[in-house]
Amino acid sequence: MVKHLYLGLLHYPVYNKKKECITTSITNLDIHDIARCARTYNVEKYYLIHPLPTQEQLVQEVIDYWQKGYGARYNPDRKDALERVAVKKSLAAVQEEIMTEAGLKPKIIVTDAQVFPRSISYLQMREILEEKENHEQSFLLLFGTGWGIAKEIIAEADYLLAPVYGASTYNHLSVRSAVAIILDRLLGEKWWEN
Amino acid sequence: MVKHLYLGLLHYPVYNKKKECITTSITNLDIHDIARCARTYNVEKYYLIHPLPTQEQLVQEVIDYWQKGYGARYNPDRKDALERVAVKKSLAAVQEEIMTEAGLKPKIIVTDAQVFPRSISYLQMREILEEKENHEQSFLLLFGTGWGIAKEIIAEADYLLAPVYGASTYNHLSVRSAVAIILDRLLGEKWWEN
Repeated sequence: MVKHLYLGLLHYPVYNKKKECITTSITNLDIHDIARCARTYNVEKYYLIHPLPTQEQLVQEVIDYWQKGYGARYNPDRKDALERVAVKKSLAAVQEEIMTEAGLKPKIIVTDAQVFPRSISYLQMREILEEKENHEQSFLLLFGTGWGIAKEIIAEADYLLAPVYGASTYNHLSVRSAVAIILDRLLGEKWWEN
Repeated sequence: MVKHLYLGLLHYPVYNKKKECITTSITNLDIHDIARCARTYNVEKYYLIHPLPTQEQLVQEVIDYWQKGYGARYNPDRKDALERVAVKKSLAAVQEEIMTEAGLKPKIIVTDAQVFPRSISYLQMREILEEKENHEQSFLLLFGTGWGIAKEIIAEADYLLAPVYGASTYNHLSVRSAVAIILDRLLGEKWWEN
């Protein structure tokens, strides 16, 4: 399995309901739920991507409480999960940090609730991550908040994942649920084999 | 696939960190995230189980806002998801309502972060739900808040699911993430086949 898989939660540039490009606010449970998923599926680091310094500070305060404050003693499992969380101002800043850490420019995997001609399946993506020649490659799995990632980022991504379908055509999962399901499909135990 | 699958989120009796039996509070995002998952995976109804009338009222206000208030016009997809949410005072009250609606006592499936001798795999449970003789049977998939479901309910359940593992032994997912992953494993599209 690939060694350097990173997760990003994009707050800008994303769409609102009217397809206008906006910046969304940080949601506290996005920090916790996704950090715990990242830890469970052995993701290297989970980046919240937000341009505003005040929002960056807010996330840092939450991390510090669970890392150094009373939270760290109260719940060491949470401390463990939040160790992998970081905030960055932009996607470019995340790519730069990964390049420095992992040595190679990360390949970007995006998710979208729409199907595009180049959308690939979860099985295909899982196989790509398992390929031996990709073991040293770094990957950044990028999720959007609001009504989805801006189209220029989708267009430039290396891989575009198909939407998650359950047992209906309804696909309006929260980003927290989508992250959980997609990490399980790409990196989870092969539960369907036994 | 089984026709009558229900979901329950238990707030009493559950454990706290010290293994004392307690009642937990309702979390707003538990209502929304799990309702959206329930809708995605075609769950018949999602029950929040809480003994306190004030907490029941709180959930009802949230549901009403998205069903009848401004929320219904602002986001019809959310209205759609919240149509399947209900609050009940106890597990017994949920069982009774399901018996009235579906005609048969529901079989209870519980989830736990520990492995027990009788734990069954996700593949086994998926196959049970797909069996032709179970198509008229109702099932209640029960999740616990806090530090997990009280042991007497675990002991009496018809089925006990194995814990979810990612790519490590860390299994401290939020209940919201666990619900998303488990519904995907039991009821989602067979993405691993193509």
